[in-house]
Parts: sequence; structure tokens; C-alpha cells
Amino acid sequence: MELLKGKKGIITGALNDKSIAWKVAERAIAEGADIVLTNTALSLRMGSLQEFADAHGCKLIAADATSLEDLGALVDGAMEYFGGPFDFVLHSIGMSPNVRKGRPYEALDYGFLGKTLDISALSFHKLLHTLYEKDALKEWGSVVALTYIAAERTFAGYNDMADAKALLQSIARSFGAIYGAKRHVRINTVSQSPTATTAGQGIAGMEDMLKYADRMSPLGNATADDCADYIVTLFSDYTRKVTMQNLYHDGGFSSIGLTAAEVATFPKE
Amino acid sequence: MELLKGKKGIITGALNDKSIAWKVAERAIAEGADIVLTNTALSLRMGSLQEFADAHGCKLIAADATSLEDLGALVDGAMEYFGGPFDFVLHSIGMSPNVRKGRPYEALDYGFLGKTLDISALSFHKLLHTLYEKDALKEWGSVVALTYIAAERTFAGYNDMADAKALLQSIARSFGAIYGAKRHVRINTVSQSPTATTAGQGIAGMEDMLKYADRMSPLGNATADDCADYIVTLFSDYTRKVTMQNLYHDGGFSSIGLTAAEVATFPKE
Amino acid sequence: MELLKGKKGIITGALNDKSIAWKVAERAIAEGADIVLTNTALSLRMGSLQEFADAHGCKLIAADATSLEDLGALVDGAMEYFGGPFDFVLHSIGMSPNVRKGRPYEALDYGFLGKTLDISALSFHKLLHTLYEKDALKEWGSVVALTYIAAERTFAGYNDMADAKALLQSIARSFGAIYGAKRHVRINTVSQSPTATTAGQGIAGMEDMLKYADRMSPLGNATADDCADYIVTLFSDYTRKVTMQNLYHDGGFSSIGLTAAEVATFPKE
Amino acid sequence: MELLKGKKGIITGALNDKSIAWKVAERAIAEGADIVLTNTALSLRMGSLQEFADAHGCKLIAADATSLEDLGALVDGAMEYFGGPFDFVLHSIGMSPNVRKGRPYEALDYGFLGKTLDISALSFHKLLHTLYEKDALKEWGSVVALTYIAAERTFAGYNDMADAKALLQSIARSFGAIYGAKRHVRINTVSQSPTATTAGQGIAGMEDMLKYADRMSPLGNATADDCADYIVTLFSDYTRKVTMQNLYHDGGFSSIGLTAAEVATFPKE
Repeated sequence: MELLKGKKGIITGALNDKSIAWKVAERAIAEGADIVLTNTALSLRMGSLQEFADAHGCKLIAADATSLEDLGALVDGAMEYFGGPFDFVLHSIGMSPNVRKGRPYEALDYGFLGKTLDISALSFHKLLHTLYEKDALKEWGSVVALTYIAAERTFAGYNDMADAKALLQSIARSFGAIYGAKRHVRINTVSQSPTATTAGQGIAGMEDMLKYADRMSPLGNATADDCADYIVTLFSDYTRKVTMQNLYHDGGFSSIGLTAAEVATFPKE
Repeated sequence: MELLKGKKGIITGALNDKSIAWKVAERAIAEGADIVLTNTALSLRMGSLQEFADAHGCKLIAADATSLEDLGALVDGAMEYFGGPFDFVLHSIGMSPNVRKGRPYEALDYGFLGKTLDISALSFHKLLHTLYEKDALKEWGSVVALTYIAAERTFAGYNDMADAKALLQSIARSFGAIYGAKRHVRINTVSQSPTATTAGQGIAGMEDMLKYADRMSPLGNATADDCADYIVTLFSDYTRKVTMQNLYHDGGFSSIGLTAAEVATFPKE
Repeated sequence: MELLKGKKGIITGALNDKSIAWKVAERAIAEGADIVLTNTALSLRMGSLQEFADAHGCKLIAADATSLEDLGALVDGAMEYFGGPFDFVLHSIGMSPNVRKGRPYEALDYGFLGKTLDISALSFHKLLHTLYEKDALKEWGSVVALTYIAAERTFAGYNDMADAKALLQSIARSFGAIYGAKRHVRINTVSQSPTATTAGQGIAGMEDMLKYADRMSPLGNATADDCADYIVTLFSDYTRKVTMQNLYHDGGFSSIGLTAAEVATFPKE
Repeated sequence: MELLKGKKGIITGALNDKSIAWKVAERAIAEGADIVLTNTALSLRMGSLQEFADAHGCKLIAADATSLEDLGALVDGAMEYFGGPFDFVLHSIGMSPNVRKGRPYEALDYGFLGKTLDISALSFHKLLHTLYEKDALKEWGSVVALTYIAAERTFAGYNDMADAKALLQSIARSFGAIYGAKRHVRINTVSQSPTATTAGQGIAGMEDMLKYADRMSPLGNATADDCADYIVTLFSDYTRKVTMQNLYHDGGFSSIGLTAAEVATFPKE
């Protein structure tokens, strides 16, 4: 297939081969896209994104997505590399110092909360603002941000990331209305099954959550590979009129109240 | 592209070249699919589906989707034609005698209401039941039904079709949970912009609704062609973990409260 | 308290002292309301509503809510008893022959399905139509129908009642738009926790569902008594601008993804 | 009525007699509650809350809701005044420097955005945290925060307040799960019709939005007085099992797609 033949875009947030963003990058390239990769300098040292870039001949630009200066340089660098405006962007950035440091939600450190929101949500506004200001996306360009259903329903232990994802989803709608009217750029969020990424390992009880979600999803949990497949359709020209949506990619979990598979695990008297 | 290369499916509800289903059929064929077309005997006489079938070498089977017998013959015929189970189905069937006869919602004819529900919603259950019972869909098969946002928000004049669409969407979820767990078959509804089809002409004030929806959609209304593009992604292997969802394909309308374009039309004092 | 002082209304669907409608009737009377009770002739024989009516001096009128004739006589009888238009109505009617006869959702009896929809959902339209046609509700009157979250998310075993509740909720919106504009009558649905009523006993695995819902509700399941308290606020003048809403009364269940209480029951390896 | 007889609570955010919070305070007192009022020192100078406090014999404590120190003093002061834990709290706090300074959403000042979120959303977490830490609310206490439908659908000109309200609503759910399980405290948001308050005057095109919302609401816009009526039911013991909900109090607007009243204003060709 060449679903993204001739298309160009930026993929943020890939760390290693467990990352959803890594899978999206692989998949986008396989579908004919040319991509620019980015992550923080720290993540580049901790992960293996440089190897990916070398192997696939991608451009790699370090950037802190909370920094307007870095984002400006990223978008300028991408436009220079692509020879002009491009087609798609993946936002796959999130981190909660409160989760990392074990601060419970009822006793958040507010400095940490500021960081959670800045990294996980406001970075999306800053990225969109930079793209918009520089007119960096082509007509009918497509932007996708990864999110999680905790934005709508409370999951024990997901902590302030739930609030960050709710904010992220709102930013997608708010900016989507403006960028859509201006340049027909569509902006959506993909609400993915819990996924066994390196980032996900920070969430308390992740293993239990994965199994629970799997039992409560008629098709089973969506994997990172599944997610990459889905996201390339959203970058393609097949989905041009989809915007400002939060799209569940979760094997059906979001529409389930209770499955027979879950009932089977209930404690017996 | 050959997004549906080697895939086989049934497309219901195409009447003429304004029909969404017609566009889906064209698009599916262009993407490499082999299809069986179906509509009622009356619609076949009124429309031009036979010509389409002749031109594209498709199989055409007349069926009344409210009749289990007809649906059985349709699915049997499709399996025979395809040489076994197939991959996708489009449900694009809806009609309200109350709308046609101008009965207002507060004074529905209940016999007509029964027909509205039977044709527009229960036909979907009957179709799914027939597919399920005959094990006619392959693993990871995909079923899509067309719907409208009136299922969630009330539109003046949409009448009992709103209730029928709400019922249809519920059937998609209810059956999706079962068919997903059994055969990994996914079932979704696509909530499309108001579209200037022959069927849409029956709705009072359709022209005004089209313009209003367009002003309230940052990307403008999605056309029948746009819808066909979108639906083939849902039939493809790229979206295997999406199920039990109501997917808005509407240029952003569903996430809009008020646009500047609409404000510009407000009456001046 | 006399939250409903001077108010008059019809309460449908009370069978015995486990019924939510029974509790609503008791509570409405305690809050100063005068009420007319109704149920089918069969239910009157099976339950103890006559005793309730005798004890509280209420008017009791037998009616089959699927019969326009019976509904007409009910509303006429109520208007005669009250001396004119009245203030509120509770719809608490639902039954699925498919559930009773153990027909699984993928193999429904369609005659039974028609009955499920007629009894559980269309009866609400017929009731509203009758009230509207006879102008039987006062300005700012209030109508409430009981529903369940299965209308939005699939619960194993809830079967075609899920579809009926989705249809019921749509009818509340569709008629709410019309009755609101005409007479300021508000129409809402209350989506109640699973409740141990006589009707609920027909649902497979009800006991497990009750426990699961309780573990997944931060405040625990809402009881029938809790529900009665809530519904009288919706009948009162305090909530005049709430209409066309589906109101979750469920201890928080609807906004929960996963609780610590539920995690504690997960199978250990 | 004495719906709040013997109940005690804090009302934030009242400025003058146009404020929703002012109306809630009046109504709560009329229903038998004893209240503590609070607002910033600046708002106390600009508005007339001191006169209200004098007239009704209420306790007034100046506090900046973004300051943990001030919130601590507020809650301590309230507990001292009430002689212990209390029953309810209204959060009615919001302000966007971006809106005030006319910065469009695509070009927000990020320092201002930080303030918008801190004042309009994080203040709610800080308030809940302070209440929780000091165990200041009684069992089955009730907390309500005011919000707007822009959190779900984009309204031109509502700007970053939309994102702040989405964050606020997420905080209500996240904290509601914890406070509910710990102390049966319920936390809800009320999504009110656009209301002609002093704060609302900052929003561009407010007058048009009010008229549009009114035409699109079958019952008409809910007023500040209506809102006060509704909120006292949420503070009362009648609604003990409602939590983590976003409750639309909007005359039906949220469930409307298009009304005949709106169609009547459409431009004629």
C-alpha cells in the first residue's frame, strides 16, 4: 500500500520500539511518507530514535515541546527539509511528575501539575500555534494527538493525566474549529486502549488495567501496531472531513458496560 | 489504491448516483473490492442500480431488508457468488412514512412509526442476525450503517427518523459486543453530514438544514463522495480495532456550538 | 418538606414495595402531591398497588400503556379526578419477552422484539402524545421516564432492553423539543443504578451486576428510595429549565472507568 | 421551603446582584442555609458583596482561590464560624486574561493561558484539596462548580475558557471518585445557559450568543435565578447519589440540533 504516498509529516514522542509513535513512524514510512522525527534531547539519549532515523534515513530534530523556541526551530527545520509545508503531525507526548513521584490525586504537587499540563496538553496548543503561525501545514493537512479514555471516565491511579488528556482533547476541538475554517486542517484525538509502552509502565497497576481492558473489549485491546494502522488512515486523504473528534480505538471498550468475559472473573461466594 | 484488494462485500440501499451507497459501491470497486448490490424490487425499478451492476459487472440481488426470508436469500446468494464468507457490509436503509405523509412528531401514525423503525433500524438487526447465523462474515469483517446526528440532538422536521437512528446506533453497539467477541467482526455507524440524496429530499427544510450545517462545519459539509472515501477505510484492515462506535463524518459539525460563519447570518437589529 | 405541595401527577408502573415507582408514589405523597396510580390489569392482580391506593386514598386506574384507548381513558380519568390539567408524570414501564424467554440478542424473536419496544419505549410516545393532545399538563409540567445506562454501553444479558432504552431516551428528546416549545413542559430520563426490583429479577446475572455496579460507584448504588428522592426534585419547581436530558442517578458509575474497589477483586495470578 | 434547613456552606464568586453565585447565596439563605461568602479582595472592592453579607448577616472572608494559603484560611474560617464541618460549596470562579485582552485562541499569550487555567480550573482542585485535607465537609456533602457547554462544543469567541471548563469538569470527575469513596461527598458541575452576568460581558458577541441560545432552547435560556433554584436541589439531601456528573441546566439547548425558532431567522434568498 501507499496510503501516504508523497505525504510528509512530523512524528513526535517516539522513544523506542514499544512506543506507539515509533510504530506510526514505521507505518507511515511503509505507506510512502517522508517524516521528521522529534523528541526531547533527554529522550533521544534514553531511547533509540537516532538508530531509527539512521536506518530509515529520516530527519531527526531534538525539541522540547513545551518550548516555543524549540517548536519554532522544529517546524522551520521540517519545512526546510520538506521544501515547504507538509501534511501531517502526530502529537504523542505526555508525562506526569505526580504519577512518577507517587503523589496521589487528592494531594498533588501543584508545581508538578503545572508540568503535567504543560508537557501533556499545552504542548499541543503550542505545536498547533507554531504550525498555524508559520502556515506550515498544507490544505487538508491532518493532526492527530494520542489520548486515553480517562479523560471521560475516572480510572484509579491515572491521576492528573486524566485532567491533562481532557485538556488536550478540548484543545483539539478549539483549535480544530479555527484551523479547519482557515486551512481545512483537521485535528483529532485517538483514544487508544491501554498500551504496554515504556511511558505506560509509570502508571500504577498497569498490568491489571491491561487485562481488565482486554476482558472488557470485545475485540481485545488495540496494540501499538493496530494504532499505527489506524492513524495512517487519519493522515490519508480518505478521512478529509473528519475533524474535532475524539476517536476511540479500543476494541470496543468505550461502548461496553460489562462483558461476559469480565463476569467470568467475578469473585464467587 | 487498492485498499480493499481481494475483499468482498454487500452494499445495500443504493438507488441512483446521488446515493451515498452508490458512491460507496463505486469507491469499493475502485479500491479492488468485489461487491453484491441490493435494494428492494421497487427501488430497483425507480432507480438505476441495474445499470450500475451491468456497467461494473456486479451481482445484484433484490431484497426487502425487513424480510428475514429475503435477507436469507441475499446472504446465501452473496456467499454463493463470492464462494464463501465475505468481508464487509454497508447498511444504508431508512424511510419514514410519517415524514412522507407529513405527520408531525407529536401526532405520529403508530402504524407508520412501526414501519419507520422496522425499515430504518430493525432491518439492521435482521441483517446482522442473518450474517451471524450463517457465519457469513470472515474474521475481522466490518459492518457499517449510516446514521445522522439527530439520534443525539433534535432537529426540527427530522421527526421519527431521529428515534429510528437512535435505535439503529444502539443495535450496532449491542450486536457489536456479541459479533466482536465471537468472530472479531466490528460494527460501527457513520454519522454523516446532511447529504443531498434522493432520500434526503423527503425531509422538510432540507435545503436550509444543508446550509446551516455547512456554516456550522469548519470543513464544510461532508459530501457523499467524502463519505465513500471514509467508509472504505472502515472496511479495510487498517481499522480492525474500531468497533461499537458512532463515528461523526461531518466536517466538525458535531463538535461545534457556534461558528463565526453562523454568527455572520444572525439577524441585525 | 412539601416540595410538591399542591402538585398533581400520574405514577405508572408501580407493582409492589420493591418498585421504584412505588417509592416515587410514596415520596410524592409525603411531599404534598396528589397522585393517580396506574398499571396493567394483570400487574394490579399480581402486585399490591390496590392496597397502596387504599392506604393513601389515591385514585387507581388500570391501563395498558401500549393502548391509545387505555391511555386516553387514563388521562381523562386523571383530569377528571384532579379537576383539570396536572403537573407531572412518571413513566416506569419496561418488559422484554426475549429476556423472559431466554432468547439471546443474536437470535431475538422479532415478534417479541416488537413487544419489547412497544411496551418499553413506544408506550412513552403514546403517553406523551395523549397528554399533549388533551393538553393535560400544566405549563412547566414535568415528565420523567426511568432508563438504564445499557442504552449507551452494552451490558451482557441486558439484551433488547438496551435498544428499547435507547429508543425511549430518544423519544424523550424528540418530544421534549416540541412539548417544551409549546407548553414549557420538560421531559427527562433518569438513568438509575441497577435496582433489586421484581422486574430486575428477570435480567440474567442481576446479582453480579448489582455488586459490580456497587464496586464501580464511588457512592455505591443508588437505591429505589434514593431514586424517589431525586425524582421529586425533577417534578418540583426547582428544576424548571432542565429538559431533554438523560440524568445519571447512579452513585458515579457512569463516570467511572475503574475503581480501586474493583481492582481489589481482580483475579490474582 | 426549607430545602437546606440546618445546612451550612461556602459560596464563592459572587460579585453583584447579576452573579449566579449571588442568586445561589440568596436562595440558599431563603432555604434555611447558613453561608460563608468569599471572593478576592479586588472583587469585594469592585462589587457589592459586603452589603449582601451585612444585609443577611453572613460571614465574608476574602480569599484568592489560586492561593492555597488563602483557601486554607477560608476553610479554617468557615469551620470556626460553623463550629465544625459543613455541607456544601459552590465554585463559581472563572476569568481569562486572553479574552479580556482580545488575544485570539490561535495566538494565546501562554502566561495568560496559565492564569486562565489556574483561576478557572486549578482553583477548583485547590479548593477540593483543602476541603479534603482538613476533612471540612460532612458525610454526603455536596460540591457544585459552574461550567459551560463550550467544554464540549466550540463556540466562536469563548476562547481558552472552553479549555479551562473542560479541565474543570475533568477535575470534578477525578476528585469526585476519591471524595465519594472516602466521605460520600458528591461533586458535580452545572452547565448553565449563557447568562448576562458582569463576567459574561467580557465574552465577544455575548448578546448574539444569548439570543441564539434562547432560540435554540425549547424552554428558553435558564436565568441566574433558575440556576440558583437548581443548585439548591444539588446541595440538598434529595440528590445524594448524583456525582461526577456534568448537568446541563440550559432549557434543552444541549440536546438541540436545530429548532424551528432558529430556522425562522435563516437568511432568505
